[in-house]
Amino acid sequence: MFSITRVGHVEIRVTDLERAWRFYVDMLGFVETERSGDRIYLRGYEERQHHSLVLKLADSPGLAHFAYRVADPEDLDRLAEFYKAKNLPVVKIPAGREKGQGEAIRVQDPLGFPVEFYHEMEEVERMLQQFHLYRGASPMRLDHVNCQTPNVQAGYDYYVKELGFWVSEYTETDDGVLWAAWLHRKQNVHDIALMTGTGPRLHHFAYWVQDLYGVIKVCDILAGADMVKNIERGPGRHGLSNAFFVYVRDPDGNRMEIYTSDYMIADPDWKPIKWSLNDPRRQTFWGHAAPRSWFDEASLVESVVDGKLLTPTPAELKDRPDFVT
Amino acid sequence: MFSITRVGHVEIRVTDLERAWRFYVDMLGFVETERSGDRIYLRGYEERQHHSLVLKLADSPGLAHFAYRVADPEDLDRLAEFYKAKNLPVVKIPAGREKGQGEAIRVQDPLGFPVEFYHEMEEVERMLQQFHLYRGASPMRLDHVNCQTPNVQAGYDYYVKELGFWVSEYTETDDGVLWAAWLHRKQNVHDIALMTGTGPRLHHFAYWVQDLYGVIKVCDILAGADMVKNIERGPGRHGLSNAFFVYVRDPDGNRMEIYTSDYMIADPDWKPIKWSLNDPRRQTFWGHAAPRSWFDEASLVESVVDGKLLTPTPAELKDRPDFVT
Amino acid sequence: MFSITRVGHVEIRVTDLERAWRFYVDMLGFVETERSGDRIYLRGYEERQHHSLVLKLADSPGLAHFAYRVADPEDLDRLAEFYKAKNLPVVKIPAGREKGQGEAIRVQDPLGFPVEFYHEMEEVERMLQQFHLYRGASPMRLDHVNCQTPNVQAGYDYYVKELGFWVSEYTETDDGVLWAAWLHRKQNVHDIALMTGTGPRLHHFAYWVQDLYGVIKVCDILAGADMVKNIERGPGRHGLSNAFFVYVRDPDGNRMEIYTSDYMIADPDWKPIKWSLNDPRRQTFWGHAAPRSWFDEASLVESVVDGKLLTPTPAELKDRPDFVT
Amino acid sequence: MFSITRVGHVEIRVTDLERAWRFYVDMLGFVETERSGDRIYLRGYEERQHHSLVLKLADSPGLAHFAYRVADPEDLDRLAEFYKAKNLPVVKIPAGREKGQGEAIRVQDPLGFPVEFYHEMEEVERMLQQFHLYRGASPMRLDHVNCQTPNVQAGYDYYVKELGFWVSEYTETDDGVLWAAWLHRKQNVHDIALMTGTGPRLHHFAYWVQDLYGVIKVCDILAGADMVKNIERGPGRHGLSNAFFVYVRDPDGNRMEIYTSDYMIADPDWKPIKWSLNDPRRQTFWGHAAPRSWFDEASLVESVVDGKLLTPTPAELKDRPDFVT
Repeated sequence: MFSITRVGHVEIRVTDLERAWRFYVDMLGFVETERSGDRIYLRGYEERQHHSLVLKLADSPGLAHFAYRVADPEDLDRLAEFYKAKNLPVVKIPAGREKGQGEAIRVQDPLGFPVEFYHEMEEVERMLQQFHLYRGASPMRLDHVNCQTPNVQAGYDYYVKELGFWVSEYTETDDGVLWAAWLHRKQNVHDIALMTGTGPRLHHFAYWVQDLYGVIKVCDILAGADMVKNIERGPGRHGLSNAFFVYVRDPDGNRMEIYTSDYMIADPDWKPIKWSLNDPRRQTFWGHAAPRSWFDEASLVESVVDGKLLTPTPAELKDRPDFVT
Repeated sequence: MFSITRVGHVEIRVTDLERAWRFYVDMLGFVETERSGDRIYLRGYEERQHHSLVLKLADSPGLAHFAYRVADPEDLDRLAEFYKAKNLPVVKIPAGREKGQGEAIRVQDPLGFPVEFYHEMEEVERMLQQFHLYRGASPMRLDHVNCQTPNVQAGYDYYVKELGFWVSEYTETDDGVLWAAWLHRKQNVHDIALMTGTGPRLHHFAYWVQDLYGVIKVCDILAGADMVKNIERGPGRHGLSNAFFVYVRDPDGNRMEIYTSDYMIADPDWKPIKWSLNDPRRQTFWGHAAPRSWFDEASLVESVVDGKLLTPTPAELKDRPDFVT
Repeated sequence: MFSITRVGHVEIRVTDLERAWRFYVDMLGFVETERSGDRIYLRGYEERQHHSLVLKLADSPGLAHFAYRVADPEDLDRLAEFYKAKNLPVVKIPAGREKGQGEAIRVQDPLGFPVEFYHEMEEVERMLQQFHLYRGASPMRLDHVNCQTPNVQAGYDYYVKELGFWVSEYTETDDGVLWAAWLHRKQNVHDIALMTGTGPRLHHFAYWVQDLYGVIKVCDILAGADMVKNIERGPGRHGLSNAFFVYVRDPDGNRMEIYTSDYMIADPDWKPIKWSLNDPRRQTFWGHAAPRSWFDEASLVESVVDGKLLTPTPAELKDRPDFVT
Repeated sequence: MFSITRVGHVEIRVTDLERAWRFYVDMLGFVETERSGDRIYLRGYEERQHHSLVLKLADSPGLAHFAYRVADPEDLDRLAEFYKAKNLPVVKIPAGREKGQGEAIRVQDPLGFPVEFYHEMEEVERMLQQFHLYRGASPMRLDHVNCQTPNVQAGYDYYVKELGFWVSEYTETDDGVLWAAWLHRKQNVHDIALMTGTGPRLHHFAYWVQDLYGVIKVCDILAGADMVKNIERGPGRHGLSNAFFVYVRDPDGNRMEIYTSDYMIADPDWKPIKWSLNDPRRQTFWGHAAPRSWFDEASLVESVVDGKLLTPTPAELKDRPDFVT
């Protein structure tokens, strides 16, 4: 197995850096670490590493890559071998190409996602107790990514059996087929969720805030700034994971979740919690259905070889509960 | 003018007292003052008077009456004369018939609502600092009633010109016709709102809680108890009034709002705030549309003469924004 | 009686305008309306009037004046007569001398405080729903002033019998002598509190925030900015008034309270709540004693005639509970 | 190394089970799993295991034991050998002697503390989403214990080098001597803190709540129930760990912390944060000093051999900051 500690950062494509900066920094309150060329490097208030979110200028929205941190730097070579043995593309990223980051590799994983593995990243000031500099909704830390894939069982086997992820919660169809899975290396509900859908597509990335107020503030701030269309779903509470959430769309349509109040899982023998796809409290504990856009729309992902967006494949199962029409 | 201080209590009809008790007391945390015959008398944690909500056993849901407190007991006679002069039904209610209450009068007001006026009510223990006894969502105090009426301009003229209510905010149609009005005697946004709709019908009564958590708790408690169908709308923030709200339906379908974060109006020359019916931030500041049931359904009201429910009259204007379909 | 609606603004003396701006605007988040000459005019997020706090450059800290708004502009002349009949100094303030304000009068009241009465003030934008512009602890509105005076019973008689204030709560010594009183015209616990102490001195002015988070933020912000010495007392909950509070000192030592969760009093016949001076839950409901500085130190007040600070007189009773040593 | 996952439960001695039940269950809202003989087994709302807190009837207060969970059941034998090799007392606890628990061992560790290791514990219902059953301050989960020991460096070496704990934060004296250390196996700030003091003594055990409201509620509930003397310190924010906390004393004087808002540490190479003992923001970020009792008083601990309380040894360094007098 590999010493993956957590999902470490996400690089998303935006078509207008200034507009994206206004959304992420000026409205939501992300901390800006550095701007360099066609990228802006951001982090949350609890994070001590150079970045957890990179905005990359591109001609269309989408996911450039997401990245896992490994505790053991030698795992980078072992991971390169692992993916080469699967005949999957592996690209070496020299230190410093991504600002603040040491050597890394990028692969197109078996599900088609552009995934980076890295160990070293520059330490920067943690803003956690710089309360006088808090702004906006004050996102604390990147928590997870949620990926749509046509066959969740295949993705599950890869993540659990090959990469050593643990399962916190999962969803089955009425026929007992795995529909979605919440998988983690760090000790909370997930680093990655796999959800049945047209894929590979990034459904969303998620930042954790400290309390309900952080979630409500996102709505109030966007509405105050006349950006109600950027609030897609919520606020609400997920049955699955217990998260109190809101989903927003950035000016390019990339989706982010801001949430709080999931829980810690410190025991590796945690017994996963099962939900039924059509249980109305699974999605939103209070019974509200998600809008259709939440199932239909997601971010295309880049090829790690040429940076072009990949054409996704439709889901092998129905991609939403029966009550979402 | 009359010395009306505030809306003081609401008596609603429920078809099963035990079931209603479980909803209001066991789930939502209302304080029970007294049970007597076919009535349960409830109050909020901030209230020092015997009751602000009465559950009355009846063969169908509905509004039995709502009541205004007058500061000057002699106003009861003056009000009786005022309504008699309008040829409206006026009924004297002897002290003690409503538990804890002195002499009162009930009238069928010009809009058809059963309205009580009273001065004297027994003082009971205020629970505000009995924090160890707080339960559920801990409603603090009755704040207002919201009434549907076919012609809001007529209701507005009666309340403002004849009863001396002040206007905090109002809504106009695209044609500049008054569609709804928020009217108050106590110093916040309203004691009563009038909204265009089939009427006389009680749309909802509202209790104030201290903070956002009180509103979120209502959702969590009802969902935890498998009563998600009782959550009708929200949580959300109203543009109009700035209230952070949720609307719930009791087991009989009577609607209650639990809300927080409106504002104080201490100046009598407050300049009313105008909203357009079709402004999407008016209803829900974050852009969410209310469900159709929220416009379609409301509680019928009793005759003060024979206790029978009155047949309402359709609205004279369209009764909802264009974007609610 | 006079049509006083509420305490409307406070003008305090600061010795360094930039330093005071950093404290009130940059740290605590007050909204700046206007700077003019040696004054900065500030307001809270809920307020629609030009200012509720004025910072005035002076050679020492202190209170320049506080002001009551009257609903009836003719009351200004009546008030001038009232104070002249008492042989107290009355000064006419022409419109515009205080920015945004119409004609006003200033008097040295019977307790020695510099008090302004005004009716007209320019309406400015209310920031309540400009959530994207919220900063710091986001104070909502000026709520009250707290004044130290050597003989509270005399001040009580003046305020209640001559100015028509109502009493919400009060404190007596073990001997049954009035030690402090909370008095109001608007419908909550107070516009002014009178407390036994060396006086005339302004003990503090208070802004209301929407919830506990606003109070905790004040502490976190000041500590984050290395200004822990400016946090004098709290956070805590007052038994009296139920307020959740913190007291801070501005860079000149003027004291401000930031608080939330007092209550509404809509009935003029509210029965005042009595507390005993030595009840440990009166001051801080959780039993914590206030520091000695909280009793010893307060702001001297200006003469309305020549702007010089008045020499105060010692209290006629012991000025603190027995358990504060 | 051993597969310790986290601190799993604490058994404390109380002299009156009913009085302790009223404090922990009726006031603070702990979930009761089971009563059996002279013990009451409690848990938090997020916990799925039989208990995390045991109240044991005894003739004096104190710590009966605290326990670490191991992921690998075979570690119980390995740990028994490890402690026997140190000539320390090791006692086998058969399955079921502690209700809901499988086989375990108890040792008197090198610092003198009675420590249990266990793997198996009965799964019970998680109350996390049973929101309608939440009571009191709703403690979520046991987080850590804090132990006083005369020589923290020795305890640190044992925990870090022999048991494989990681260091999140630590405190040094002005002379650069280790004064306290925060050590963890699960991924947040600590499972155990070691603090210089007379020892072995349990300074406190700590439960995590979801937000600031949970902490404030503890104060309000105890004050509402006329138990202000049970509130010892706080609420406040620790500089070290960023926790928002309150310390309470149970009716026997055992100390518990209720806290929220520390942070997650998912990387094993986290660089520990250093604080100076005399930095006023270390203890309370807002500058408040802890009361003397907080340093002077702590719970004696049992012998695992005969259940008698051990006589502690004085600290080898000064046991508090210079500014605590």
